[in-house]
Amino acid sequence: MAVRWPRGFSSGAAAAGIKSEGLDVGMLVADRAVSWTGTFTKNAAAAASVHWSRGLLDNEIRAVVVNSGNANACTGTAGERAVEEVAGAVATSLGCRAQEVAVASTGPIGVPLPVARVCSGARHAVSSLSADVSAFSQAILTTDSRPKIAATQVRGAHIVGVAKGAAMLAPSMATMLAFIATDASLSGEVLGSSLRTAVSRSFDRISVDACESTNDSVFLLTSGCGGAPDASEFESALTEICRSLAEEMVRDAEGGSRLVRIQVAGASDEGRGVALAKGVAASVLWRAALHGGDPNWGRVLAALGTIDRDLELPCVDVSIGDAAVFRSGSPTGSLEAAAAEMQADEFNVFCRVGQADTFVELLTTDLSPDYVRLNATGTS
Amino acid sequence: MAVRWPRGFSSGAAAAGIKSEGLDVGMLVADRAVSWTGTFTKNAAAAASVHWSRGLLDNEIRAVVVNSGNANACTGTAGERAVEEVAGAVATSLGCRAQEVAVASTGPIGVPLPVARVCSGARHAVSSLSADVSAFSQAILTTDSRPKIAATQVRGAHIVGVAKGAAMLAPSMATMLAFIATDASLSGEVLGSSLRTAVSRSFDRISVDACESTNDSVFLLTSGCGGAPDASEFESALTEICRSLAEEMVRDAEGGSRLVRIQVAGASDEGRGVALAKGVAASVLWRAALHGGDPNWGRVLAALGTIDRDLELPCVDVSIGDAAVFRSGSPTGSLEAAAAEMQADEFNVFCRVGQADTFVELLTTDLSPDYVRLNATGTS
Repeated sequence: MAVRWPRGFSSGAAAAGIKSEGLDVGMLVADRAVSWTGTFTKNAAAAASVHWSRGLLDNEIRAVVVNSGNANACTGTAGERAVEEVAGAVATSLGCRAQEVAVASTGPIGVPLPVARVCSGARHAVSSLSADVSAFSQAILTTDSRPKIAATQVRGAHIVGVAKGAAMLAPSMATMLAFIATDASLSGEVLGSSLRTAVSRSFDRISVDACESTNDSVFLLTSGCGGAPDASEFESALTEICRSLAEEMVRDAEGGSRLVRIQVAGASDEGRGVALAKGVAASVLWRAALHGGDPNWGRVLAALGTIDRDLELPCVDVSIGDAAVFRSGSPTGSLEAAAAEMQADEFNVFCRVGQADTFVELLTTDLSPDYVRLNATGTS
Repeated sequence: MAVRWPRGFSSGAAAAGIKSEGLDVGMLVADRAVSWTGTFTKNAAAAASVHWSRGLLDNEIRAVVVNSGNANACTGTAGERAVEEVAGAVATSLGCRAQEVAVASTGPIGVPLPVARVCSGARHAVSSLSADVSAFSQAILTTDSRPKIAATQVRGAHIVGVAKGAAMLAPSMATMLAFIATDASLSGEVLGSSLRTAVSRSFDRISVDACESTNDSVFLLTSGCGGAPDASEFESALTEICRSLAEEMVRDAEGGSRLVRIQVAGASDEGRGVALAKGVAASVLWRAALHGGDPNWGRVLAALGTIDRDLELPCVDVSIGDAAVFRSGSPTGSLEAAAAEMQADEFNVFCRVGQADTFVELLTTDLSPDYVRLNATGTS
């Protein structure tokens, strides 16, 4: 699939020797300084690049430079200086100010960033700019098995998103990065609220291993030289792009073999529903059962009952695929039907927890011995 | 080790066919109705036996009957009737009221309790009562590899504790049970406050897989026919018994090969320190690294930064054993020394997160491919 950035954007990439092989520096460039918005990890151990980019949220920017193979997180003041140096080098290449260059990083935590390599890679990336997203989409990967790209259009405006994650491999802690560019002609306010909504319904609704990273970042840039959809149309289209990228991440999750949709209906509000779904997705016991295709639904109830201490079992139903395993507080005994449903590569785990008119869905995957093995070594 | 119950107590056991083999019904009996206290899971999906026993907290009791091989959790109204029937059968055997018989269960969730077998086992157990704890300590085990017993005395009062858990095997979700008997002559108030303190510093400070069970219960009974230690002496002795049993559980954790002490110093209060330690112990990435002996300390910081969004990295130190890996916000680079520390069967992970005068320790173990395999099948 040859996907091109919307009008006003180009990208480049380089192999700078940060990873042991392959492209590891990517650069997304706007023809002129443009409006942008972003969402970033809330982790207190956030990377130096996250701190830097978050500080640019009130500026227009010309470029985002991203390196894979090193998270530049928990690297102290040296890490902060490294980000400034990288932004400065890109600014020199593009003829703009360092404060117009956002920075993202992904890879192992706590390893000093090889600044000279990143700067050199960034200069090479600038010299290779084109409208094709493919090299950029490769350069941001770590343990991902394939690039993640989504594109759509709405009322003459184009939206293109590229992402990496959330697969993990020692020594790196997974990081999830997404870069979305559009030519939609929209106010900064609409851009910001659309991204917050889209992220809350996509990237915030996946969980591979309940481990939040230090580097999660989503960037949305607009050149403004395309159509002018109304705010709700744009938000819907953007949400679809984000959902598509988020689902790709779960399908590519390390060691995972199944895509499981944890659905929670009837929670008193949506936030409560999300918390319950996250609780189920965080249960290593349930995720081990997902791996083996074992309908051990008691682990779902134990997880729900941990998150909501006031859960009323007589109001609870649980189904695996089309097999109801627990209804109105009692087991149905349909274990064989549930086990058959769990043979599929993709299925739903539906939990009704009350009568309120809410519904949320969270994507997760199974926990495999391979996941443990892959994450058990590699740092020293 | 031939351990005997304190004066006033005896126990028995039977093989009733609830598990595929071995003793599976245990009975702890007091010579007369005695004061007791207990702590129970907060899980909203708590077992029928937990509801029953919690309802007896204001009564004196004669006995606790426990079955392994079935949790009687999420079993609907049939499960509630089953508990009443079991308590009634024991009461008939002992010549007391059903409300003087506490009940505990451990095993798979959501499977109807085979009431007739439990009642028959309970009658056999009554006919085999003796002061020796050993048969009882065997009867309560599920996937544990060995019994867990601790005994001490303080000022002429004896305390004996027996526990099972928290190892796990499909189809059962782990449950942690502990039965402690003493002959100390103490008020019910002292008994209650001592147990709350002891549990908060022992069983509440272990985490094998961050999955809370539907059946966790700790019972403390006193015959009152021994010495009269003062409250603080008793509390200290009881805490040691609980800590010893809790540590045995982690050492026997399924698939685990290491005992790891997560230590958090300097948190603003002890509760905050416990939350941070639990966050580190819940990170499947860090626990996978523990399994491989990989000093991937960035995963510790990522977990701390998720729990405390205001964590200030310049105030944070992390050590693995004697190897400092992160000091005052920057990596030390001592990965080889840390990897060497992680070769031990038992080591500390020390995290300083601030300057307050608090220190907490939580015991956990590594996450192994075996744990995943053992919990991936078995229900259907």
